[in-house]
Amino acid sequence: MARTREEMLLKWLQDAYALEQEAETMLKAMAGRIEHYPELKARLETHVEETRQQAAQVRACIEQLGGSVPVARSIVADLMATLHAAGNAMMSDEVAKGVGIGYAFEHMEIACYRALAVAAREAGRADVAATCESILQQEVAMAEWLLEHQEAIVLAFLTRESTEGVTAKR
Amino acid sequence: MARTREEMLLKWLQDAYALEQEAETMLKAMAGRIEHYPELKARLETHVEETRQQAAQVRACIEQLGGSVPVARSIVADLMATLHAAGNAMMSDEVAKGVGIGYAFEHMEIACYRALAVAAREAGRADVAATCESILQQEVAMAEWLLEHQEAIVLAFLTRESTEGVTAKR
Repeated sequence: MARTREEMLLKWLQDAYALEQEAETMLKAMAGRIEHYPELKARLETHVEETRQQAAQVRACIEQLGGSVPVARSIVADLMATLHAAGNAMMSDEVAKGVGIGYAFEHMEIACYRALAVAAREAGRADVAATCESILQQEVAMAEWLLEHQEAIVLAFLTRESTEGVTAKR
Repeated sequence: MARTREEMLLKWLQDAYALEQEAETMLKAMAGRIEHYPELKARLETHVEETRQQAAQVRACIEQLGGSVPVARSIVADLMATLHAAGNAMMSDEVAKGVGIGYAFEHMEIACYRALAVAAREAGRADVAATCESILQQEVAMAEWLLEHQEAIVLAFLTRESTEGVTAKR
């Protein structure tokens, strides 16, 4: 069964919407648990707000294409729920690994919006492509922030971890 | 319970070893399923070989530190097994999403080896840091390859998908 460019675009937008829902859940859980890494906590909270706006933008694109927001969880959402659960478990172990999970998650989103921008242009929807490219820039900025701050977070973690009587993991 | 820098380094190396084991399984499964994207298949196969060598290098670092290769699956390995299963399921749906999963996976590894290099320097193990930085460069190269080839793979997928009687997904 061949599908048109517009059908593919709609399907991918619906996957992106599910992905943003999971992103919001995961980011909120991560930010909420952090106690001793205030810069990371603040950046995650900013990104929660960006993520909400991104979900609204993706939803608007879906509606412009005559589609509806997915109710059933897609396979992407299932994957993300697992990443989310694993992310929580790791956060309870080590903030250093939470950064790794978050970094991987951002790149899943980067790949998603890059593919969507291509699919939107192929379907002749420059408006949707522009929205996807704008969201892409926010995901790239979040990923770059994590990369730039990873060393400081790891060093802070190692210092706390080797100090008796101090909590390192959050 | 405070842990020394060397104890943390060893623990993270053991996690990295588990991660490489999963990477090999996932990459082999992905490469094996691809039929119509020969460049991607070839690059994945090259990376399977790199991944095997990386696992051996990480194992050597673990042994230099007097540790042993993990038998029990770590939480990282559990996460990766899920990513692997999801990756397979997505590959059977769409090669375009497999690229996204692979891209996210590479960035999990990039974050892992960057953190390890910091931990190794902090533990005074320049030799281990050098190994981790060398593996890091291979992971970065793989991630860059996926980014550079994503648009062509997505376009090929969309063309196949909109053509009646042709398989797009692999």
